Amino acid sequence: MKAPLKSQEALAQAIIDDIAALTREGEGITRESYGEGEERAAQAIETHAAALGFTTERDRFQNVWIRLPNDARTEAPVVIGSHLDSVPLGGNYDGLAGVVAGMLVLDRLRHAPQAAPPVRVLALRAEESAWYGKAYTGSLALLGKLPASALALRHRSGHGTLGEAMARSGVDVDAVARGEALVAPGDIAAWLEVHIEQGPVMVARGWPSAVVTGIRGNLRYTRVRCVGETGHSGAVPRWLRHDAVLATADLLARMDEHWRVLLQMGMDLVMTTGICTTQVQSHAVSVIPGELEFSFEVRSQDADTLERFHALMLDECRAVEKARGVRFEFDESIRSAPARMDEAWIARIEAAAVARGAPVERIPSGAGHDAAVFANAGIPSAMVFVRNANGSHNAHEAMDCVDLIDGVDLLHRALCATSNA
Amino acid sequence: MKAPLKSQEALAQAIIDDIAALTREGEGITRESYGEGEERAAQAIETHAAALGFTTERDRFQNVWIRLPNDARTEAPVVIGSHLDSVPLGGNYDGLAGVVAGMLVLDRLRHAPQAAPPVRVLALRAEESAWYGKAYTGSLALLGKLPASALALRHRSGHGTLGEAMARSGVDVDAVARGEALVAPGDIAAWLEVHIEQGPVMVARGWPSAVVTGIRGNLRYTRVRCVGETGHSGAVPRWLRHDAVLATADLLARMDEHWRVLLQMGMDLVMTTGICTTQVQSHAVSVIPGELEFSFEVRSQDADTLERFHALMLDECRAVEKARGVRFEFDESIRSAPARMDEAWIARIEAAAVARGAPVERIPSGAGHDAAVFANAGIPSAMVFVRNANGSHNAHEAMDCVDLIDGVDLLHRALCATSNA
Repeated sequence: MKAPLKSQEALAQAIIDDIAALTREGEGITRESYGEGEERAAQAIETHAAALGFTTERDRFQNVWIRLPNDARTEAPVVIGSHLDSVPLGGNYDGLAGVVAGMLVLDRLRHAPQAAPPVRVLALRAEESAWYGKAYTGSLALLGKLPASALALRHRSGHGTLGEAMARSGVDVDAVARGEALVAPGDIAAWLEVHIEQGPVMVARGWPSAVVTGIRGNLRYTRVRCVGETGHSGAVPRWLRHDAVLATADLLARMDEHWRVLLQMGMDLVMTTGICTTQVQSHAVSVIPGELEFSFEVRSQDADTLERFHALMLDECRAVEKARGVRFEFDESIRSAPARMDEAWIARIEAAAVARGAPVERIPSGAGHDAAVFANAGIPSAMVFVRNANGSHNAHEAMDCVDLIDGVDLLHRALCATSNA
Repeated sequence: MKAPLKSQEALAQAIIDDIAALTREGEGITRESYGEGEERAAQAIETHAAALGFTTERDRFQNVWIRLPNDARTEAPVVIGSHLDSVPLGGNYDGLAGVVAGMLVLDRLRHAPQAAPPVRVLALRAEESAWYGKAYTGSLALLGKLPASALALRHRSGHGTLGEAMARSGVDVDAVARGEALVAPGDIAAWLEVHIEQGPVMVARGWPSAVVTGIRGNLRYTRVRCVGETGHSGAVPRWLRHDAVLATADLLARMDEHWRVLLQMGMDLVMTTGICTTQVQSHAVSVIPGELEFSFEVRSQDADTLERFHALMLDECRAVEKARGVRFEFDESIRSAPARMDEAWIARIEAAAVARGAPVERIPSGAGHDAAVFANAGIPSAMVFVRNANGSHNAHEAMDCVDLIDGVDLLHRALCATSNA
C-alpha cells in the first residue's frame, strides 16, 4: 500500500470541501436529485477521479462509474459507492462520504489490485426522497426496478415531474420507462456502502465506525389532505366547525400515543410528519382552516409492523372523520422494503476489525440506503457506518475524515481478506 | 320615501356586482387593507355615490365619507358604515354590504332628510386582521387609538409593514403615529353598522335580519414558533426526538379538550389555529420537523375568559416543552376588547321592527367589527346582521339583496323614529 493514511485524509478532505463549495446554499448544502447541485457534484467527482489517474464513465442513467485503469479482470466486481444527491439545505456528508470512501479504497488498491477482487466505485443519482417523494430512484432504475409510474411523480414544488428532471439531466428516460436494467444482479459480486450514521448512537458510544446489520423499510404518504370547511374564526360555534388543523392534531396525537405504546411492546418503529401546512395562499389567523396538507411516514425493520401501523392509521383517520366531519384524502402510498445485510460480508468486516486490533460494533440502520435495493435484488450487500454528529438531513452534519478513513480501512482489509480466502 | 324597494335592490346589486368584478381573484375576492383591491372598491364607492347625487370626501386616513348635499344641519351626525377590505380570497359581502346599506339609507332620506337625524356614510379602511395581524386598524386610527407600534406590524407575506402600506395608500402616517384623532367621540351621535352574519345561525333559523347585542373580543398570536430539532426521520429514536409537529399537535389537542370542557361549563369561547406551517423551504417527508409556526386565537364575550384561557395555554406550552424538549416562542399578543351594543339603539331597532309588523331577534356577534371600537370609545353603537349562507372569510359568502334591504329598512325606520321621538 502506497498512500499513507495522512495523505488519504487530506485527499478526502479536499474532495469533500470542493463539493461543499460547489453546492452550498445558505448554511446548508443542496444537491437536488437530477438537478444542478447533483450534476456539479458528479462532475467534481469525475475531475478528482481523473486527477487520481482513475478511469471514469457515465452510464445511460447518468451514474458515475470509477475504476482503476490497470485492472483488466473480467469477473463480476465488488461495487463500492453511495449517492451524490442531498435533501434541500442538507449536510455535505450524507451520500458523498460513501462515494469518497470508494475512491479511497481504489486509491489503496492502485498499486496492488490483485490483493482484492476487482472493484468499481459507483456514484449514484437520486437516493433522497425529499425531491420527488420516492427513495432509491437511481439504484432502482439501474437495476430496472423503478416503476414507470414513478416518472410522473411531481417535484416537491408542485412543478415538473421526475421524468422531466431525468430527461434534463441526460438520462435515457425511455430505457428507464421500459424497466431496462443497466446492471443485472449477477454482474455485481457485492455492493459495499460507507455512510455516515444519521442517528446519535455512535457519537454517544464513541464508535468511529460500525457494521450495519439491516436497513429499516418505510411506508409513506407524501401528501395527505385533511379537508374540512373554512369559516369565520369568531362566528362559527364549536359544534358546527370542521377544523382541518384540530382534526389533524387529533389524528397525530392519537398516532403518537399508539407509537409510544408499541415501542413499549418491543416493536421497531418510528413515525414522522415532516411536512404540515395550511394553505399558504389563503390561510389567516381569523379563518377556520378548511384544509391542511401533511406527510406521513413510518419506518421499521419489520415489514409486518409497517403494514399494521398503516392500517391503524387508516382506522384512526376514519374515527377522526366521523368525530369532526372532515375527510382525509391520500395520495399513493410509497413503500420501501426492509433489507438484511449479507452475513458473510458482515463476518468479513468483523474479522478485518479483529485482525487490525479491536472488534467493530454492529448497528441497525434506521435510515434507508441504496444498499437495501441491492440487497433486495439478491446482491450480497454490506454497509459500514461512520460516526457523525448532529444527525443528517440538516446543515449541521459533522463527520471527521479520520473516522471516514477508519471505515475505509475496514473495507479495504475485508476486501483483501476475501481475495486471500 | 321615493325609492321603492325594487329599485333599491337593483341599486344594491349593481354596486355589489361592480365591486366584485373589480376585486375578483380566482374564485374569491381580494381587497387588501391599504392595498389595490381596497382602493379600487373605495373609488367605485365614490363613483356610485356621485352618480346618486351624494357628496363624497376622503379624510386624511383615506376613509370615504358620503353625505346628502342638501343636508346642512351641523349637529353631530349618526354615522352608518362598515369596511371596504376583505381577507385574501374572501367573499364580496363582509364589509361591503354595510357600506352599501349606508348608501341605501341615505338614498331613502334624500327627499326627506329632516325625517331623521343628520346621517353620514363611512366606508372604512382596514378592518381585517388577515393582512397585518391587527383588526380594526382603520377605525382605531380614525379615533386616534391605533398604537404607533402597530405601524411596524409586518405584512402576512413577511415583506413590508402596515405603516409602509398606509403611506403608499396616501394616509397621513405621521398623524396616525401621533395618535391624532380625525373624529372625537362627541362628533358622532351614533355608529350604526349593517353586516352579514358570519356564522350559520340566521340561515338555520330563517331570520333575514337581526339586532346585535354585543361583540366578542379576542386575544391572538399571529406567530407562535415551536422550535425542536431537525433530524433524519429514520435514524433518530423516539426518546431523542424533538419533533415540532408532534409537540404542536399535542398542545393543540390539549387546548381543544380544554375548550370542549369549558363550553360544557357554560363559558363563551372559540379557539382557532388558522395558520400552521412547517418550514416550506426545507421541510421534507424524511426530515423530523425542527420548526413549526402557527397562529393562535381565542374569542369570547367575556374579557376574563380570554385572559384565563390564555394563561392555561401558556401553562400547557410549558408542560409540552418539558415533556418533549421543544420551545415555544411567541410574538406579541394582540387583544381586542369585547363590546356591548347600545341598549337605547337596540330598543329603537326592536321597536321599528314591531312597528313594521314583526319582532326582530337578538343575536350576539362572534366576529369582531368596527362597531366594537366605536362602542369602546363611548359612542353609542348598534349593529344589524343580515342573513348570509356559507359563513364569511371565504369565497362562498352568499347574501341576498332582499335581506340587505330588510336590514336597511329596519335602520331607516329606527332613524326616523329617533327624529320623531
